[in-house]
Amino acid sequence: MKYILILLFIPFLSNAQIKMEKLDLMPWPQNINLKDGTFTITKNFKVNITGNPNPRIFIGATNFLRRLDGRTGLFLEQAFITKNNEFPEAELQINCVRNGKVELNEDENYTLTVSANKIVVNATTDLGALHGLETLLQLLQNTSTSYYFPMVEISDSPRFIWRGLMIDAARHFQPVDVIKRNLDAMAAMKMNVFHWHLADDQGWRVEIKKYPKLTELASDGYYYTQEEIKSVVKYADQRGILVIPEIDVPGHASALLSVFPEIGSKVSNEVTYTVGRRSGIYTPTLDPTNPKTYLLLSEFFDEVCPLFPGKYFHIGGDENQGKEWDANPKIQEFKKKNGFASNHELQTYFTMKLIPMLKKHNKELMGWEEIMTKDMSKDAIIHSWKGVNESVSPGGSLVAAAKNGYKTVLSNGYYIDLMLSIQSHYLNDPIPKNTVLTAEEKARILGGEATMWSELVTPLNIDSRIWPRTAAIAERLWSNENITDLNSLHKRLKTISFRLEELGIMHLRNKEVILRNISNNQDIEALRDFSNVCEPLKNYKRNGGGKKYFMFSPLTLFADACTADAFDAYDFDIAVNNYLGNKNIENQTLVTNYLRKWILMDADLIKLSVNAPLIQPLLPLSKNLKDLSEQLLIGIENKKKVNPDVLNGLLEKFNLRSPADVEVAVYASLKKLFQE
Amino acid sequence: MKYILILLFIPFLSNAQIKMEKLDLMPWPQNINLKDGTFTITKNFKVNITGNPNPRIFIGATNFLRRLDGRTGLFLEQAFITKNNEFPEAELQINCVRNGKVELNEDENYTLTVSANKIVVNATTDLGALHGLETLLQLLQNTSTSYYFPMVEISDSPRFIWRGLMIDAARHFQPVDVIKRNLDAMAAMKMNVFHWHLADDQGWRVEIKKYPKLTELASDGYYYTQEEIKSVVKYADQRGILVIPEIDVPGHASALLSVFPEIGSKVSNEVTYTVGRRSGIYTPTLDPTNPKTYLLLSEFFDEVCPLFPGKYFHIGGDENQGKEWDANPKIQEFKKKNGFASNHELQTYFTMKLIPMLKKHNKELMGWEEIMTKDMSKDAIIHSWKGVNESVSPGGSLVAAAKNGYKTVLSNGYYIDLMLSIQSHYLNDPIPKNTVLTAEEKARILGGEATMWSELVTPLNIDSRIWPRTAAIAERLWSNENITDLNSLHKRLKTISFRLEELGIMHLRNKEVILRNISNNQDIEALRDFSNVCEPLKNYKRNGGGKKYFMFSPLTLFADACTADAFDAYDFDIAVNNYLGNKNIENQTLVTNYLRKWILMDADLIKLSVNAPLIQPLLPLSKNLKDLSEQLLIGIENKKKVNPDVLNGLLEKFNLRSPADVEVAVYASLKKLFQE
Repeated sequence: MKYILILLFIPFLSNAQIKMEKLDLMPWPQNINLKDGTFTITKNFKVNITGNPNPRIFIGATNFLRRLDGRTGLFLEQAFITKNNEFPEAELQINCVRNGKVELNEDENYTLTVSANKIVVNATTDLGALHGLETLLQLLQNTSTSYYFPMVEISDSPRFIWRGLMIDAARHFQPVDVIKRNLDAMAAMKMNVFHWHLADDQGWRVEIKKYPKLTELASDGYYYTQEEIKSVVKYADQRGILVIPEIDVPGHASALLSVFPEIGSKVSNEVTYTVGRRSGIYTPTLDPTNPKTYLLLSEFFDEVCPLFPGKYFHIGGDENQGKEWDANPKIQEFKKKNGFASNHELQTYFTMKLIPMLKKHNKELMGWEEIMTKDMSKDAIIHSWKGVNESVSPGGSLVAAAKNGYKTVLSNGYYIDLMLSIQSHYLNDPIPKNTVLTAEEKARILGGEATMWSELVTPLNIDSRIWPRTAAIAERLWSNENITDLNSLHKRLKTISFRLEELGIMHLRNKEVILRNISNNQDIEALRDFSNVCEPLKNYKRNGGGKKYFMFSPLTLFADACTADAFDAYDFDIAVNNYLGNKNIENQTLVTNYLRKWILMDADLIKLSVNAPLIQPLLPLSKNLKDLSEQLLIGIENKKKVNPDVLNGLLEKFNLRSPADVEVAVYASLKKLFQE
Repeated sequence: MKYILILLFIPFLSNAQIKMEKLDLMPWPQNINLKDGTFTITKNFKVNITGNPNPRIFIGATNFLRRLDGRTGLFLEQAFITKNNEFPEAELQINCVRNGKVELNEDENYTLTVSANKIVVNATTDLGALHGLETLLQLLQNTSTSYYFPMVEISDSPRFIWRGLMIDAARHFQPVDVIKRNLDAMAAMKMNVFHWHLADDQGWRVEIKKYPKLTELASDGYYYTQEEIKSVVKYADQRGILVIPEIDVPGHASALLSVFPEIGSKVSNEVTYTVGRRSGIYTPTLDPTNPKTYLLLSEFFDEVCPLFPGKYFHIGGDENQGKEWDANPKIQEFKKKNGFASNHELQTYFTMKLIPMLKKHNKELMGWEEIMTKDMSKDAIIHSWKGVNESVSPGGSLVAAAKNGYKTVLSNGYYIDLMLSIQSHYLNDPIPKNTVLTAEEKARILGGEATMWSELVTPLNIDSRIWPRTAAIAERLWSNENITDLNSLHKRLKTISFRLEELGIMHLRNKEVILRNISNNQDIEALRDFSNVCEPLKNYKRNGGGKKYFMFSPLTLFADACTADAFDAYDFDIAVNNYLGNKNIENQTLVTNYLRKWILMDADLIKLSVNAPLIQPLLPLSKNLKDLSEQLLIGIENKKKVNPDVLNGLLEKFNLRSPADVEVAVYASLKKLFQE
């Protein structure tokens, strides 16, 4: 339906352009020339690799075959690709000029040509070729009985060299299989930096062989062995992804200090530190005046750095409010003696001491924007994260860093844990068109990074917080800045979201698991309908103040099944807009079908709740939606105004804070119906 | 509805017995005394542990809290349990007399008492206590607003000491996370032996540090590092599960011989071995006359044995047809020289040479029944697997072994890869009532083991092949031999199946993933309906002769979404039986609702197939079901006989071999309707 409308509204599309609309490519390539004709896939379809690639392309091409086979059910004959030029006559030819290195600034370009009998991927490096294979998989089309690629010429390259995803494995530990499946999804979206947040107040997650107590006492048994980290780094490298570890210091240090209280900043006769069990900002901070602080950190770095071949090491540095420093006379004296005017200057002193420890391992320091003070080394990368929530201009530090001569990466606007709408992330450009920066300054803006802070995510729901939304961020960072059409985004994202399942992403399937749990093994249709119009509370309003949930609590509630960008909310809004534009019977029916569904849904939820305590908190919300739907239905079908007092009263109740920690996401659309 | 019927038919149930019917315990405990009254769970609910347990009970009790919390959403306050007697006043008291050891014959008994304000689990060892916690979780009940345990006294102990599951990680590799989630499910079903099939024709899956080529050349990159194996063994130990490794020799050796062709039995000038890419029995066999064979095996065992603390090592020994031995004059000569009358005797010679290699590591040898020849050591455990498919009496070797003085384990009848009905496994008793064995002989029958051969399973569908069916086998091996009621089994299994999800088992969620893939991202309701009456072909009829599928092919077809014991087939049969017993309108409607559903489903599938090539092969099957449903509907609703020629014709077509490799599982029920 929507597709037809789009065509009607855009009458100047050529035939090729119309076909282009069918392609669910993401991130959208830089240049695409779609042609008439197709390449049909048979079970004899084979791949051949030439040039001087890194062997990762063999694994990538083998995985390509398996994924193509999984979709088509053809039982493709080619087994594991392990060397160059095995099938010179193969239909798909991949040529890489040279071995790619997984690091920033590496050449990731590729060209892809599909003709009737041949497909060619050309790239300088295997990293570019891997991107080309992802594009090719996204091109797959089908008739009712067969699969094909459309004939096309694509040349493609990234806009930014840093297209990252951070996963916080500290607050809620995320096992290796969770990390690996997310690396697969990142690769599918042509992302190239995985930032691994490995230590925070709530846990120390990396094995330090010299100090086994760290994980014995500060991880609850949930940590990565060094072997596991090596396997993740290898897995990432095979997918062209650079891994940046983060050990967050000097704040966010409760877990570390629970094991080494002697390097904490508390005044010594009151020293007790414990692993954080809740959300929120904790005060425990390393003592920058204590030589042992640096000795220990240096020993940790000596073990952690060699696990990560990349050039960058993230030392956090954020949210140190300096409370413990202010309260400690010894530290105050140190500040005075050294002429530090502020805690910021003291923190810079601390951070600068880390630089040689990292240099020893050929690593540059990266940190959250708080590390950017006047004495900070220009080799550091500044990670811009603050914005409206922190009462500063969004990503202001990004511009400041670029002007100050720092390389910088944007995360403000990409905080996917805030549960904001996808469009807020999608339209958040690291270099907006109105930016007043020199070319040199712009070049210092490396790109951006989605941040998956894990206060409210476990292995069960994390995928639905990251995906498919991060695909939109990936497109912002890869594609041309003019690719901003929201209808196109939403349309393509439906396919992308579906396809992420083949990589093991669990966002769709685990939602059903949570709904089954809530339903107490009853039919989940009504719950599914409701979850498709509800969204978890945004901007950290859920679990207000970190009071209710412990970090060890499972997250198996309705809010965990719901996601930002509620599945039906966007479509309902389009239906409402269409109806308000033209009240023909088709448009009316689309709207009233939703209203009827929600009325029935409420009755079903009431029935289910008799044997499902976890449904009880949803009933008031569902009742509000039903009451409003009933009134609007009467109004629409009887073509008459309903009592505005009644409607106003209903609307008022509608989005009162619910104990279910969700909000109904069709409020604005319903209001439009009511107001007209 | 069913529940009411059961009550009507069993009028002598007491009030407590009626409540007992509500309990979905599995395996059913030996003694259970249900009382009036309940224990209500609040967020303050706490656990306390006393006695001298192994620390595994701390992990088990912590996991118990997390699972209880996940179901109830209470945000229980107790964090990680790490020591004895933390909360002496806790509501749940667990007392273990002594440290349990994960080995056969260890005490696994427990008692569980729920009273109004206190719950007590008493056990000799922590292994028994873990079982008690699983029973307690299964007792969880709810009102519409709260959760409780019914007051009860249970004393429980296993009937057999070997309650095993084998997973074949050779034909299709199963990553560590797949293994671990299955260990969790095993523990929930009180199973205590995990048999890990690590090498076969299609792959060598265990790292041998001295010979890295083994996994480099014969695993396609899919193998377990020794670190990973240790982590699995530790994980299993924490759950009271003994791990038995299997390296299958002298047959099933293609992968091994592809790396070490010099120890194969082929005549030397024609030596080539390759890793098997298909199903079926391969001929490559180790050369029992070559000293290097024993040298290498001994070196492998020296690395593998220390990874497994248990007392047993499985050396396979099955399906050596001796073809390569017969064809090799040197081996024939060796046989003659040593006076071996048969290949069996030669194989015994081979197997006996392994015994001291294992003894060196304090391991006893275990093997499939072929190892049982007259000279085999009585210390060996005989694994009975052959039956009707192999043209011998089912599990005959079990009785023979027991009579011959061997300890023995039954797998015939527990081949879950055959996709047979759950009742065939459930009613397969290792010691049937009519067994004529002495008490001493019976005592040699250690128990049984479900075998998940992996020709047709990948990480995507393996859980749905193992679960929930293996729960029925677990009950056979744990519970009293008189617990055989199929209605009760099916009723309880619905809850058990649902609850397995909380342990990470993916049988339900991954089915939806496959259906979404087949549907090409369209609505899957019709596919779901159809999958609920279809079953994969049984007895290895799927992928006939191993011709179509490669071991590297993904398995993402309709047959992979379908399972044995099709979800609606059992319920439909009950509906048909009820209708035939009493043709009142309620009973008729239940039957006709199914028929109508299948008629609509066929129309929906046709619609979906326009954009989903993978649906095409299902349409003939669906049409048959629709045609038959239409005829039966006319007959039932018009109370008239339909033309028997028409019906016969439809029935005849009904179960013709389908290219979709599934069969419609309501054939017998439909035939009943037709015949009456």
